[in-house]
Amino acid sequence: MGTTQLESVPEPKYWHLRTVLSEALDSEFSVGEILPNERDLAARFGVARATLRQALEQLELEGRLQRRRGVGTTVAPPRVGVAVGTEQHAWPGAPEDAWQPVDSAMEVPPAAVAAALETGSDDTVHTVRRSRTSHGQLVATELLYIPAASVPDLTAIDAPSGAARARAVLREVQHLPLEGQDRAVELGSARADDARDLDRLPGSPVLVVTTRFFAQGRTAALSVATYRADTCRLTFGDSPGVEIHHTPEQRAS
Amino acid sequence: MGTTQLESVPEPKYWHLRTVLSEALDSEFSVGEILPNERDLAARFGVARATLRQALEQLELEGRLQRRRGVGTTVAPPRVGVAVGTEQHAWPGAPEDAWQPVDSAMEVPPAAVAAALETGSDDTVHTVRRSRTSHGQLVATELLYIPAASVPDLTAIDAPSGAARARAVLREVQHLPLEGQDRAVELGSARADDARDLDRLPGSPVLVVTTRFFAQGRTAALSVATYRADTCRLTFGDSPGVEIHHTPEQRAS
Repeated sequence: MGTTQLESVPEPKYWHLRTVLSEALDSEFSVGEILPNERDLAARFGVARATLRQALEQLELEGRLQRRRGVGTTVAPPRVGVAVGTEQHAWPGAPEDAWQPVDSAMEVPPAAVAAALETGSDDTVHTVRRSRTSHGQLVATELLYIPAASVPDLTAIDAPSGAARARAVLREVQHLPLEGQDRAVELGSARADDARDLDRLPGSPVLVVTTRFFAQGRTAALSVATYRADTCRLTFGDSPGVEIHHTPEQRAS
Repeated sequence: MGTTQLESVPEPKYWHLRTVLSEALDSEFSVGEILPNERDLAARFGVARATLRQALEQLELEGRLQRRRGVGTTVAPPRVGVAVGTEQHAWPGAPEDAWQPVDSAMEVPPAAVAAALETGSDDTVHTVRRSRTSHGQLVATELLYIPAASVPDLTAIDAPSGAARARAVLREVQHLPLEGQDRAVELGSARADDARDLDRLPGSPVLVVTTRFFAQGRTAALSVATYRADTCRLTFGDSPGVEIHHTPEQRAS
């Protein structure tokens, strides 16, 4: 099927090069190996530097290459499956939660968040910043927005600052009966602060997971989580380890 | 919180420009409007063309801009929520399925798929190609892999070719008792044939959703679905309409 269709498609040069490079990665390079520099690669494949760069970008999008400052371009290990949908119907901070609290404050949320939480556009809400580690690497950062109405018994004494404050807010929100939650996944670009935490350049592609937590007939909390798109595969369902990653053979089907 | 942290981060020029451009999009442009050409934009913001292009790429990743051949760069409408996780535990082709069968064949699957399906590396399996439309636009393409063992009673007479064959294969697979399914979402780049169907350039960022269907104690079918990352937000859970998209205010938090 593929071949016939492909023939009718004018294939851009960078796309063809991507396929050739992908095969070379399989046959000549191993995970972690540093690629030759752009000039040498362009010469070897007889293409312009701009074409080469486009092909390298494709392979980076697919998680096959990593570009790291000061190191160069290396062959990436297979992506890590990170379970997103397993702790259905649990508040952030419940037992088994994979996230680590980092910080907490009172802030005026972005307009879209205020609308979802039905708070006034100038009202502050509790924010909790958390991070998530998988296989020893920071893979995601999260900003949780929790309106004061969702944690009515929180006191300043219980919640002084930093991670302790974050834990106190999360402890309080557990008291609400959770009625449900939903999630959306979309492509985004890393904000400067997230990029720093995730060891990426600002603007790098990320997977943004927005989760709404419902209680008392309204959205009682909202989470915006930013996952590294280069190294993570988000898994949903009972068995988190979907092991099909997009190897070049699969892409070439 | 954001401000203090940001100050300690060396902010690249393109990232600063992205923020400025994003604010300009809000205040001066409406959805569908065509942006001035790159030369004029670079002059207006006093930056090099390369910096401008990087900033435009960020905004494209975030779904705020669309680049279309022959049209130019336009202001994108908000992303469309596409429900991915609602038909839990139903075979492809079950009632309520949002996908339309397009074609079907017998093919040797990619090695990673063969491994997941536990078929021999040279064994052919049924492939079913489907497409998905949302709000009148093609938003995703899918390739389903179904081993012959999952549809033992399928006959050549029942399944001649094209969409009719696709429907026959899907009808047959319904006979197996579905024991569960899981999903993974990751970033990918559009293959040439998918790119053509989705009206994108080959290599454009896409969201790849891999679903495994379990029956008779094994993976009885595997789906690789490719969603446009520019226009789609994948939703999971009971209420598919998570309306938080990443508006510039939210990004600027």
